[in-house]
Amino acid sequence: MSKDTAKDTEFRPKARKPRGLRDQFAGDVLARRHALDVIRGVYESYGFEPLETSAFEYADALGKFLPDADRPNAGVFALQDDDEQWLALRYDLTAPLARLAAEHFDALPKPFRRYQFGPVWRNEKPGPGRFREFFQFDVDTVGAASMAADAELCMVLADALEALGIARGHYRVRVNNRKILTGVLETIGADDAHTRLIILRAIDKLDRLGMEGVRLLLGPGREDESGDFTKGANLAPERIARVTGFLAAGDADRAKVCATLRALAGASAIGLEGVAELEEIDALLNAGGFGPDQVVFDPSVVRGLDYYTGPVIEAELTFEVHDETGRKVQFGSVAGGGRYDDLVQRFRGVLVPATGVSIGVDRLLAALRLLQGDKAAPAPKGPVVVLMLDKTRGADYQAMVMELRRAGVRAELYLGGSGMRAQVKYADKRNAPVAVIAGGDEFAAGEVTLKDLVLGDQLSKDIKDNAAWREDQPAQQSVPRANLVAAVRDILAREHHRG
Amino acid sequence: MSKDTAKDTEFRPKARKPRGLRDQFAGDVLARRHALDVIRGVYESYGFEPLETSAFEYADALGKFLPDADRPNAGVFALQDDDEQWLALRYDLTAPLARLAAEHFDALPKPFRRYQFGPVWRNEKPGPGRFREFFQFDVDTVGAASMAADAELCMVLADALEALGIARGHYRVRVNNRKILTGVLETIGADDAHTRLIILRAIDKLDRLGMEGVRLLLGPGREDESGDFTKGANLAPERIARVTGFLAAGDADRAKVCATLRALAGASAIGLEGVAELEEIDALLNAGGFGPDQVVFDPSVVRGLDYYTGPVIEAELTFEVHDETGRKVQFGSVAGGGRYDDLVQRFRGVLVPATGVSIGVDRLLAALRLLQGDKAAPAPKGPVVVLMLDKTRGADYQAMVMELRRAGVRAELYLGGSGMRAQVKYADKRNAPVAVIAGGDEFAAGEVTLKDLVLGDQLSKDIKDNAAWREDQPAQQSVPRANLVAAVRDILAREHHRG
Repeated sequence: MSKDTAKDTEFRPKARKPRGLRDQFAGDVLARRHALDVIRGVYESYGFEPLETSAFEYADALGKFLPDADRPNAGVFALQDDDEQWLALRYDLTAPLARLAAEHFDALPKPFRRYQFGPVWRNEKPGPGRFREFFQFDVDTVGAASMAADAELCMVLADALEALGIARGHYRVRVNNRKILTGVLETIGADDAHTRLIILRAIDKLDRLGMEGVRLLLGPGREDESGDFTKGANLAPERIARVTGFLAAGDADRAKVCATLRALAGASAIGLEGVAELEEIDALLNAGGFGPDQVVFDPSVVRGLDYYTGPVIEAELTFEVHDETGRKVQFGSVAGGGRYDDLVQRFRGVLVPATGVSIGVDRLLAALRLLQGDKAAPAPKGPVVVLMLDKTRGADYQAMVMELRRAGVRAELYLGGSGMRAQVKYADKRNAPVAVIAGGDEFAAGEVTLKDLVLGDQLSKDIKDNAAWREDQPAQQSVPRANLVAAVRDILAREHHRG
Repeated sequence: MSKDTAKDTEFRPKARKPRGLRDQFAGDVLARRHALDVIRGVYESYGFEPLETSAFEYADALGKFLPDADRPNAGVFALQDDDEQWLALRYDLTAPLARLAAEHFDALPKPFRRYQFGPVWRNEKPGPGRFREFFQFDVDTVGAASMAADAELCMVLADALEALGIARGHYRVRVNNRKILTGVLETIGADDAHTRLIILRAIDKLDRLGMEGVRLLLGPGREDESGDFTKGANLAPERIARVTGFLAAGDADRAKVCATLRALAGASAIGLEGVAELEEIDALLNAGGFGPDQVVFDPSVVRGLDYYTGPVIEAELTFEVHDETGRKVQFGSVAGGGRYDDLVQRFRGVLVPATGVSIGVDRLLAALRLLQGDKAAPAPKGPVVVLMLDKTRGADYQAMVMELRRAGVRAELYLGGSGMRAQVKYADKRNAPVAVIAGGDEFAAGEVTLKDLVLGDQLSKDIKDNAAWREDQPAQQSVPRANLVAAVRDILAREHHRG
């Protein structure tokens, strides 16, 4: 190849973001910031304080796998450090908290109550709306065995969702207790781990397969649409009925659920303990003023992760919305968690009771956008844009823009190289409320021209039926240079009024 | 090994965070949040809008290395994706911006003005105060060749530092232009890349070695304290003088610096272009009202990264403080950046001018803490703590705490299992302003006892010389249960007054 083409054959990487990851532009960032502020306010009102851990943990501390495999990348992003130890990006905010609580146990207040927001990473197959980096906002209490800690999690979730503008009746916090299921399994004699696993897997599919599908999986097995057959647990019919009766016991009347569950738990000590815990949570919810239109007891809540040891909690959105294509969308679960008394024990060997919930921020934001439209994610208001029409007058434009800023008005100087039309277009694209225009005429007259871009936009829509009004409030006016700040403020106040 | 000890021999990971990474507790998080809010306010006042990219980029897009090495981990955290492509955690926020600008070029407003805050990761040897995850807060304009964009970066840095409470005179924004150095090297005939590299490396050591050390490295070479000898550039004395004259040309009088540099650039076209750019920046700074006590021109500013193509900018703190051990600490650079017209071109093959600066948030926060003490990082105010003295009264305590929250008072229920003394201690540790106490006596009398923990703390200090005052304002009082909220509010208002 000749030297002339060397430049063309230089390595030129393709500009593309990695699979399953996102860029978030101003609208997304601002909507999320607003939601985070609201949720944080609620978390703080309950007395939780902030904590941040780093993106990495030692892989063994995450507990997803032991560091002996060659590339322990299944499900997480892992890499080997210089000293041969495996690091992994956190896949949730609970495992790092357990590590931290174990590491700093003696120095922490007990109970330790923290909230943490941040990205988590999962090395899974990305899909539409399924990203490999997403955001969680967790709240946990470590070192509290009391059911008051779990009851509080239900309350804080309800309060957070309502503070975000989700009306009562549009969400539901559903609570269950792992101990009761264990108890029910005891009463039907499902003692061996293998049978229990098959039953749990069947129950976990309730959402997708419905009660009839679960019934088949508890019994002889089930053939899916593709013809694949899944072997069942082969339980006898009366045992199946006991399990499905348990799953169907959910009700808005929390006391009634407790009574049903007490009957189903029979003589199982662990089952009765679980029921007593739910009863305690019910009493605390009542005392806190949280009714059945906010928090319900629902034994069909299982939650996939197997580290839960007691109450499990899930917050779901119950309203239906239509997406851009007109399709009905149901959002389902936007937060979940529960009690995990064993997690800190992994490190310390002593039991440290803990409980917490995690809000899935991305899914919640998607729901808010469909529910509240522009109210959830208002288009970011742009700055006032001072056009740069005469390059030799840079200092004059600079003085204008700085005057506006010093007066508390967001303002920017147009920094590109284009002509006037493109500059006004730029101001529009930035959602600027006002463009400040000064060319030769204005400088000669000691004036500036202000273009009200919001009004201009409105006028060009209203142009036919509102000609008179248009005469009164022209979208463009010239004012003495000395009045720049006052006149811009007037326009902003007028727009604020109209908006 | 016997089965009895199986439990003890289970794998038990050590609870420890990875080397060179941090946990940030409430005080750190709150101090950072405050600083970020202030900086963001300034960035927004200049018309920048938020952007967030993900933690990962394709390694080739980061431009630090090509994806052909076996484990391209030098300096960054990299791992291979399922499809064999190399991913790397971002090591700054500029490279992802260049990738994004190239990827979305047509859709973006031009110029594109964004700010981004976030962690970046460097796989380097950690040390005291040197972490492998740290935080940057960047502001950039992509698609603007105008020096107004660079001038603005100087202004936004000065405004941000002052908004954080760093007085004029306690910081300095230093500006240089790469083109002038190139011009000076031209005038001394240092045309070959190798000589230029040796000269640049020598200049980069000015901070550490002083002018005499640089002079040696430009000449015959230099022996360091350990006896190691570094070969020099072997320049003739008059050429060395030209370079050191350039380095020493910095001055508070920006116009004077420009004049000196114009003389040093001689007939070099690129050098003169650089001087003209500085002159333009000077005029804009003057128009914006930024004096020599805020922004100076200083040719000794080099900045390590070699991608800069024009103005380079560095903000440094100039005050001296003493750390906890009484040692003098000078903070030096807390922000830096400059023009990098080539970065987007790497992807697109067309020139897209761009310029930006990055604030090193961690170092800035460390400086603020030493400069402002508690004002920079106030101990987080804790919630009102409702003690749980009688476990059978959980619902009553729950009602109290929720009443306080509903009235806008941060409040938490004590959730641990300890006795009264430990509960009060806990409230103290949480920095709670008030403890709400209700035991058998209080319930019988329909009262609650409120303990003013701030006053209590003060009284136990003042106890000798202020006994009378103590009588008037006891740290503990009983009030009717119905007055709980009002009485707590009174105490908080009193504390706010005193504080």
